[in-house]
Amino acid sequence: MVRPARLMRSAVGRFFEYDTPKIVHIQSLHIGITYRFVQLVIISYVIGWVLVYKKGYQETDNVESSVTSKVKGVVLTNFTLDPNATADEEKLRVWDTADYVIPPQENGAFFVTTNIIMSPNQEQGICPEDYSSRQLGASCSTGFDCPSGSKSANGVRTGTCNNATSTCDIRAWCPVEKDVEPQSPVLQGTEDFTVLVKNQIFFPKFRVRRRNILDGFAKNASYLDSCLYHPSADPFCPIFRLGDIIALAQENYSTIAVKGAVIGFVIEWECNLDLSVESCLPKYSFRRIDNADDVIAKGWNFRYANYWTDTVGRQSVQRRTLIKAYGIRFVFYVYGVAGKFNIVPLATNLGAGLALLGLVRLL
Amino acid sequence: MVRPARLMRSAVGRFFEYDTPKIVHIQSLHIGITYRFVQLVIISYVIGWVLVYKKGYQETDNVESSVTSKVKGVVLTNFTLDPNATADEEKLRVWDTADYVIPPQENGAFFVTTNIIMSPNQEQGICPEDYSSRQLGASCSTGFDCPSGSKSANGVRTGTCNNATSTCDIRAWCPVEKDVEPQSPVLQGTEDFTVLVKNQIFFPKFRVRRRNILDGFAKNASYLDSCLYHPSADPFCPIFRLGDIIALAQENYSTIAVKGAVIGFVIEWECNLDLSVESCLPKYSFRRIDNADDVIAKGWNFRYANYWTDTVGRQSVQRRTLIKAYGIRFVFYVYGVAGKFNIVPLATNLGAGLALLGLVRLL
Amino acid sequence: MVRPARLMRSAVGRFFEYDTPKIVHIQSLHIGITYRFVQLVIISYVIGWVLVYKKGYQETDNVESSVTSKVKGVVLTNFTLDPNATADEEKLRVWDTADYVIPPQENGAFFVTTNIIMSPNQEQGICPEDYSSRQLGASCSTGFDCPSGSKSANGVRTGTCNNATSTCDIRAWCPVEKDVEPQSPVLQGTEDFTVLVKNQIFFPKFRVRRRNILDGFAKNASYLDSCLYHPSADPFCPIFRLGDIIALAQENYSTIAVKGAVIGFVIEWECNLDLSVESCLPKYSFRRIDNADDVIAKGWNFRYANYWTDTVGRQSVQRRTLIKAYGIRFVFYVYGVAGKFNIVPLATNLGAGLALLGLVRLL
Repeated sequence: MVRPARLMRSAVGRFFEYDTPKIVHIQSLHIGITYRFVQLVIISYVIGWVLVYKKGYQETDNVESSVTSKVKGVVLTNFTLDPNATADEEKLRVWDTADYVIPPQENGAFFVTTNIIMSPNQEQGICPEDYSSRQLGASCSTGFDCPSGSKSANGVRTGTCNNATSTCDIRAWCPVEKDVEPQSPVLQGTEDFTVLVKNQIFFPKFRVRRRNILDGFAKNASYLDSCLYHPSADPFCPIFRLGDIIALAQENYSTIAVKGAVIGFVIEWECNLDLSVESCLPKYSFRRIDNADDVIAKGWNFRYANYWTDTVGRQSVQRRTLIKAYGIRFVFYVYGVAGKFNIVPLATNLGAGLALLGLVRLL
Repeated sequence: MVRPARLMRSAVGRFFEYDTPKIVHIQSLHIGITYRFVQLVIISYVIGWVLVYKKGYQETDNVESSVTSKVKGVVLTNFTLDPNATADEEKLRVWDTADYVIPPQENGAFFVTTNIIMSPNQEQGICPEDYSSRQLGASCSTGFDCPSGSKSANGVRTGTCNNATSTCDIRAWCPVEKDVEPQSPVLQGTEDFTVLVKNQIFFPKFRVRRRNILDGFAKNASYLDSCLYHPSADPFCPIFRLGDIIALAQENYSTIAVKGAVIGFVIEWECNLDLSVESCLPKYSFRRIDNADDVIAKGWNFRYANYWTDTVGRQSVQRRTLIKAYGIRFVFYVYGVAGKFNIVPLATNLGAGLALLGLVRLL
Repeated sequence: MVRPARLMRSAVGRFFEYDTPKIVHIQSLHIGITYRFVQLVIISYVIGWVLVYKKGYQETDNVESSVTSKVKGVVLTNFTLDPNATADEEKLRVWDTADYVIPPQENGAFFVTTNIIMSPNQEQGICPEDYSSRQLGASCSTGFDCPSGSKSANGVRTGTCNNATSTCDIRAWCPVEKDVEPQSPVLQGTEDFTVLVKNQIFFPKFRVRRRNILDGFAKNASYLDSCLYHPSADPFCPIFRLGDIIALAQENYSTIAVKGAVIGFVIEWECNLDLSVESCLPKYSFRRIDNADDVIAKGWNFRYANYWTDTVGRQSVQRRTLIKAYGIRFVFYVYGVAGKFNIVPLATNLGAGLALLGLVRLL
């Protein structure tokens, strides 16, 4: 019975024993200065850089975001689909949102047509290939230049050469598109279109929700109906003029409008949740993403078509209007980091800092 | 020859020398208790929080995800495009997937129309601006109120005031859309539509692949054809009723259906790959993303149009049917983190923990 | 006056004092070997794995990416919309980009139709349900099998049974689609289509911009017009043949073309910015994402429609052509990490390593 008690006492004694290394004090000005200086550098680094500047005491969370956009504006062109229209009046055409935003909604992006090549009322048939087409083998002198069944830019060659155009006859949607290099935008005035952008963000870890239409303005319909974003004068208005966006991206609208471009619409949220959540505000910036100097497929364009069937007597003919749309593709990039005090990153960063301090002693 | 050997022996001796600090044992109950307590706290923190709760011994990887969706269902409306239809029978119209899912596919999202304002058979021309349009300057008393060339909501003013409507005449797609605030959804019964969601995920670092159609069900076509997701009764069925989704997002379907909404369709994968990969299962949740209290552009709607050309004799007229579609935009958010034992994070976390323990001794 | 001076001197003395633990040298071959071995392991781990292999001395940044794509190619089918076409010639039809890329642009993805079920010139009316429809309750013997107002796959039942087809009469877009399991792709030769992919990336932290069209090639229009991606022969050509992509994804094109698939188009950028930025190059890989063994909704398809209005006399009838498109959905995944020397991660990793070394001494 005596022994366990003694063991116990011994164990308890050991448990509350405190070990400390025997320290030798060395007084040396030279070593001392170096030592303190290196210590100072490391402490400054840990406190100044890691903890204060990089906010190493905060747990961070990435943003979850949703963006919707709505473009407004109309333009008038003297562009017409009807080749028989003669009077200037008949050539006028108004373009509204449904005409120039294609497709009508996209996830995280939107497109505004600025220039257009329209090939109205095409139908399946045989017709000469487009001469302006840069494709090799469009031109011909005899049918031997047009091997039957071989593929051309817009269709499949039939084996004959069209004397009138000196291009191969092809089976295609006829008449084929005249693919000319555009010189000036058909839709003039698209820089005055405005876009309402709604961005909702959410930090799942902190359960914090923010949106770019600030609470102070959210109830103010007349302000939101009439305001216009300006980087300094009105930095929180959610309505942007396209021309302003392009100017802020350091680009020239009338140049871009000819062949299109891809523009990054960046929304940044940097949220220090140790402060008031009200100080967590969106910051907008814009930059051109595609390369202005591309030698192939410069700018941004794509083709789409509207289809219908003409019923004449017993015959029905499927027709389409082909549209080659040049324009500006806006892609949203939403960045956001939220930070909030948390013991875990603080301990990790302190720990690593202390280990560095230990390193000094070894040296 | 003697010297190098001696040096060598000396070097070898040094190499296998082990340095240990001379330790002073201090027996003090007070310091001992404090010391052990702080040690305990740090060890508990490192082991309990960092290693066990936060799984600090695991290497993690983020998910790569692909989602496709397919909506099913039909509704019948007594809504018609033909203004000459008189019999009730003629006004009936069936809407299927191709009619209400616009655009037919989107990357990471899908849209279901719940309400609609249709402006059939518009053509370019001159007609009075819509009176109900909330835009300023729609109404007029004389032509002076309608400066020629100025822009209205739906077109460009011609300079004359239409006496019949007391609004400016505009050049536009005519007749212009009657933009009334919708009171009830035109498409009744959309809450019974179902959507099949297929989500494939991949953790590149671990080469692990999972999908939301679990292997146990994947071969069971009759189960997959008839099941319906329920958070507790059937949490792994990949088919969701729209009404259930909205209810789980704590929203009222009939309210949302009027003006539309943006709903987050969240799929979460938390995978501990140290356990069986079979325990890596999807968890669904839903939440409304847009703000229900917005004063401008509340809910979610957009305009699109179908185009065709009417050929009458030698004249061809381009026409369109403009559709303002209100509806629910579902946006997928797929989150996933996989963890697997790895020596690197274990070492890093242990190292930081030990450094903290060293801190205690200094104090 | 003496005292502060002495205190001062004492404090200054203390400040430049250097403490070092008294060290005991223990000479033991056994402990020495173990000690040095463990030290070696840890040092190798810290230097070899953390610093060299994992580049722990680098600050990293994630990529911001934008991808646009442009598909080229035409195919000829002997597929026609006109049921009255009799001559083989009349049945020929050419398909171009606007016909088979639906929708014309998507954010981070594109779709190429490979197979099609077309239901031309549908209008609202009453017609028998499709018999081949796998839906339960399509077939009937009397009107009692077709409860009026109940929903069928393509429409709403009227309460009568159509004797000719033994299926319920439904109110729907008529005639309804004949939903047969496709056996071979209608569009033959889509594997020869090519796609030009433009990928611009940006590392915001380092302000570094790269694109997949390398500077060396960017000015060389003739190379870019004629090159074709090959994993070893031409790994930086931005033009890809669809058939090659599918082959590199280890799939069979003619199998996939029947019912469609989802293919991941992976672009990886691993950039060590301590080296020349020119060595930061894209790496392409491809993999099938959807499950080839799915029992429901196998592959990838969706329905869309083209709408128009037929005006006959005073009556206008809305019609549509319904298209069920099977095809390959390419989804872009752009990964990229850039690393650059930075003192912060180096210090953190060194700190954690040193702490581990300290652990050895304790043991």
